[in-house]
Amino acid sequence: MRIALDAMGGDYAPKAIIEGALLATQEVQADTQIVLVGHQDQIHPHLAGVSIPEQKIHIEHAAEQIEMAEHPMKAFAQKPNSSIALGYRMLKERKVDAFCSAGNTGAMLVGAIYNIKIDHIARPAIMSYVPQLKGNHAVMLDIGANTDCKPETLNQFGELGSVFYKHLYNVDAPRVALINLGEEEEKGNIVSQATYKLLKNNTRINFVGNVEGRDLFKDKAEVLVCDGFIGNVIIKMAESYYEILKRKNIEDPFFDNFNFESIGGSPVLGVDGNVIIGHGVSNATTIKNMLLLAERMNQANIHERIRNSLESTP
Amino acid sequence: MRIALDAMGGDYAPKAIIEGALLATQEVQADTQIVLVGHQDQIHPHLAGVSIPEQKIHIEHAAEQIEMAEHPMKAFAQKPNSSIALGYRMLKERKVDAFCSAGNTGAMLVGAIYNIKIDHIARPAIMSYVPQLKGNHAVMLDIGANTDCKPETLNQFGELGSVFYKHLYNVDAPRVALINLGEEEEKGNIVSQATYKLLKNNTRINFVGNVEGRDLFKDKAEVLVCDGFIGNVIIKMAESYYEILKRKNIEDPFFDNFNFESIGGSPVLGVDGNVIIGHGVSNATTIKNMLLLAERMNQANIHERIRNSLESTP
Repeated sequence: MRIALDAMGGDYAPKAIIEGALLATQEVQADTQIVLVGHQDQIHPHLAGVSIPEQKIHIEHAAEQIEMAEHPMKAFAQKPNSSIALGYRMLKERKVDAFCSAGNTGAMLVGAIYNIKIDHIARPAIMSYVPQLKGNHAVMLDIGANTDCKPETLNQFGELGSVFYKHLYNVDAPRVALINLGEEEEKGNIVSQATYKLLKNNTRINFVGNVEGRDLFKDKAEVLVCDGFIGNVIIKMAESYYEILKRKNIEDPFFDNFNFESIGGSPVLGVDGNVIIGHGVSNATTIKNMLLLAERMNQANIHERIRNSLESTP
Repeated sequence: MRIALDAMGGDYAPKAIIEGALLATQEVQADTQIVLVGHQDQIHPHLAGVSIPEQKIHIEHAAEQIEMAEHPMKAFAQKPNSSIALGYRMLKERKVDAFCSAGNTGAMLVGAIYNIKIDHIARPAIMSYVPQLKGNHAVMLDIGANTDCKPETLNQFGELGSVFYKHLYNVDAPRVALINLGEEEEKGNIVSQATYKLLKNNTRINFVGNVEGRDLFKDKAEVLVCDGFIGNVIIKMAESYYEILKRKNIEDPFFDNFNFESIGGSPVLGVDGNVIIGHGVSNATTIKNMLLLAERMNQANIHERIRNSLESTP
């Protein structure tokens, strides 16, 4: 297996990214190669003195680089030799099995939507883990790729998350819930009321109803569905709580699970390839875990299972 | 001043409500009278043996009662002699200066909208306090009365919150922020992008831009604007964190501020009267604080200031 990693993406790139790749070489499967995509002159110094076999780490030179603050659409179009554009090309041509980047999130999304979109999937979604009080994790989608969602799109998010959870964690019929402001079917805004009906009648998933903000951590479901606006606010609010607790030196196993370092990144679901977007501030440990998650997603063949599942008529 | 209190509303009514009223009598101003609205046969036993002068507590008999689970609109129409309907009638006829209830939230909203609506205010909003890391509180609205909001409505929420904060806390130009998924003006969904423009051009308020989920507690603004869907999820999620921390015996002054007991309840802003809706599980302390908040709102003349402010052309 080959996992492409954007060596130029992230606030601490390329140093932290390359360090993360080196850490990962000690934990990935024997036949997994990490492909560092980026400018070779900036990568080589960080590998000086490191003896690592070519079968573990390979460098793919990318002459250009998309900066963190660049306009995603313009940058992606104007820099075909950037590490992000090259990563997606390799993924599309099946030269790599996954692509990870802690770089410009918007550019990563543009690449996902324009390079490896699956026709019958309305909108790809960014997924995040949501720690549960019982110790496990639920997944939530979307967390920011789609700010305005049609009920049909949200319904499909339920399917994307369901296939992901089923195959990555070997859970037969993951419970899918809709994030809403009340438990009853008739509660919510216009979109959530219509979405409830679609999810309820969707025979491909195990829909268990609405879940409120107070129950997000209470093991009500494995898959939490919401639009990217609400998902983004939730995930950033959770991140904020984690930071506040950490700064106050309050330690607890449940709250520690909100550490994004240990999760690695957010998979993009509903595209024809394994893609993970990392946090800009990712350090070496985060990058290592992002690569391990990518390896696991590829082993479970997530993106093909999603394509096959959604292509089949229910 | 006379504050009406729904003696029948709440999971622990009438006992906890009456106990709360009795606690409040020791803290309110000398000329403040609490009017217990409810069935006299159910109220009297809880006052047996209590010597309390009529100038402090008065009973207003209500033959009917709206249950917590009843359909708000139907119940309000079919039970004109319920404590909630009577409370609103008294408020409308200026027989009381404020009305508080921990009962059926929907019925409380129906009463607010149909009995004491202000013509030029599109939609009343429910406001909540959001503790800040610096120790103060911001206010957030709406938290559940309006699930689908037009930009004009959200813009008005900014004004409602601003007038409330200005006059209750004597802050000259409270900072108003829009809850969004990014800081930049162009970020967000269709409604939030349009709302940003209205807020930015609104000369009646001090708009400081967008605030993300991660910055809700970081003293970015005194007034946080959002629709009732997102506000509801945020407030319930915060409630959930508070409960989890409490169950884990983690104590901290910042997190303790999320205790709704000490806040009392959520004011309804944009109606022609001081109205506070309490949590169903309110205990005596919560009720006492709800009454103290109502007294303070009436002293600051909040509802009239809102009406006058929004009537004036900017």
